[in-house]
Amino acid sequence: MEIISIVKQMQTHSEQTRQLDHTIGFVPTMGFLHEGHLSLIHDARKRADEVVVSIFVNPTQFGPGEDLEAYPRDLPRDIELIRQEGADIVFTPKPEELYPKNFQTFVELEKLPAHLCGISRPTHFRGVATVVTKLFNIVKPHVAVFGQKDFQQLAVIRRMVQDLNFDIEIIGAPTVREPDGLAMSSRNTYLTNEQRVSGLSLYQSLQKVQELLKNGIKNTEELIKAASELIQSYPETQIDYVSICDPDTLEDLPIIDRPALMALAVKVGKTRLIDNMILNP
Amino acid sequence: MEIISIVKQMQTHSEQTRQLDHTIGFVPTMGFLHEGHLSLIHDARKRADEVVVSIFVNPTQFGPGEDLEAYPRDLPRDIELIRQEGADIVFTPKPEELYPKNFQTFVELEKLPAHLCGISRPTHFRGVATVVTKLFNIVKPHVAVFGQKDFQQLAVIRRMVQDLNFDIEIIGAPTVREPDGLAMSSRNTYLTNEQRVSGLSLYQSLQKVQELLKNGIKNTEELIKAASELIQSYPETQIDYVSICDPDTLEDLPIIDRPALMALAVKVGKTRLIDNMILNP
Repeated sequence: MEIISIVKQMQTHSEQTRQLDHTIGFVPTMGFLHEGHLSLIHDARKRADEVVVSIFVNPTQFGPGEDLEAYPRDLPRDIELIRQEGADIVFTPKPEELYPKNFQTFVELEKLPAHLCGISRPTHFRGVATVVTKLFNIVKPHVAVFGQKDFQQLAVIRRMVQDLNFDIEIIGAPTVREPDGLAMSSRNTYLTNEQRVSGLSLYQSLQKVQELLKNGIKNTEELIKAASELIQSYPETQIDYVSICDPDTLEDLPIIDRPALMALAVKVGKTRLIDNMILNP
Repeated sequence: MEIISIVKQMQTHSEQTRQLDHTIGFVPTMGFLHEGHLSLIHDARKRADEVVVSIFVNPTQFGPGEDLEAYPRDLPRDIELIRQEGADIVFTPKPEELYPKNFQTFVELEKLPAHLCGISRPTHFRGVATVVTKLFNIVKPHVAVFGQKDFQQLAVIRRMVQDLNFDIEIIGAPTVREPDGLAMSSRNTYLTNEQRVSGLSLYQSLQKVQELLKNGIKNTEELIKAASELIQSYPETQIDYVSICDPDTLEDLPIIDRPALMALAVKVGKTRLIDNMILNP
């Protein structure tokens, strides 16, 4: 396995790989890897001749007062995990190379970021779309794998790839959960033991709504109320949003009469957790 | 020479070309070609194994009330001219394929569009950056050639290529002029005979400032006043801007103590003409 940190070296390497008619699978990450990330690498491994994993804590997707500086990092451990998963390249660019002085170009979507996480994080998806565009131009993949846990991010990237004509296949991989249901996240490391229990309220509320739907309750106001009450019954929880919406446009649905996305964001203490599920009527 | 109008076909063709280790040179145009465009194709021909010329009147770079519908078109003539210049591919995508329903992703620069043409055309460079990103992802060139006549456009594209890490070399080619000095432009076709004469005021004012500078006048306020007076002495002229600025940032310079860009935009009748020159102290 090779570790590359210079943009030009990565581009040259990818160009050579493509010349050999080998396909490139790409998994972009912010590091501090957990089993969710490893499942993405595993998926990419099956789809491409060469697998590139990037580790980059992208400053432009953090807002003021968010956890950019505190975001957990452990590069040696990450590299070892990626090696074990059988990737070929770890790409670890430096922030000052990706965002030099005078950097001023951003990729923005007009509609998708106006929903869900974009409401409390207004510049987040601009940062995501911009860094993913940059990484696509550097890594030059044939296929890229993203987690469904970040559903809105996946929707933004799919839309961006289509709109900007990136010749790249985008794969959404299922959320990996702890045995008790908590969605894997690098931010779970922030939680105290008690908060860890409150974090379970996200998955439990998804399951509860699924059950209510099975019993015939299709009114989303009612379903959201039930989910919110469940979450609020746990200590230290503060709901950012609970939404049931169209999976493509992310616009709220009043009634579940077709497959719908249920997505939620909850602050547990100071840690913001997200989760989601597709609900089938 | 091949004519391609489907995005996927163009991508497949370019991928095959790159597989053969042939380089691709790209000249994006809005059609209605003149000798300026042909000089870009000629330049690309020298730099790459295969030359692709796109013809696409890009709706997103026209503002409300601008000349999108009236913009001159003559595809058969364009194709013949491109053939004579020795290009390999003409790419003529359909607006509805490049901008499908629900299109919502744009590439935006924060600083460069706040100057010169961007002031009276506030969404123009967003449209340019977006369509050039799309065309780069479709044509997959190694090198792309743009005219220096559209100096701000060239600056925007250079900055965007650097910021978004496009692995593409950008070439700026010199402005081609009519024998009397008028910069070639597809919009010159709008001019009446009398307006055609007034159009000469742009190049004449550039030459006049160059002469004054040679005589030791370095104060840009004074130089801009002289240029403006010359332009205003012609009938039907209305100055949009006359600027002397830093060629990289496009910020106004008070004194010419290093190479400076002089750029101007003038409405002659209803037709907006632009021109520019680098001034060396």
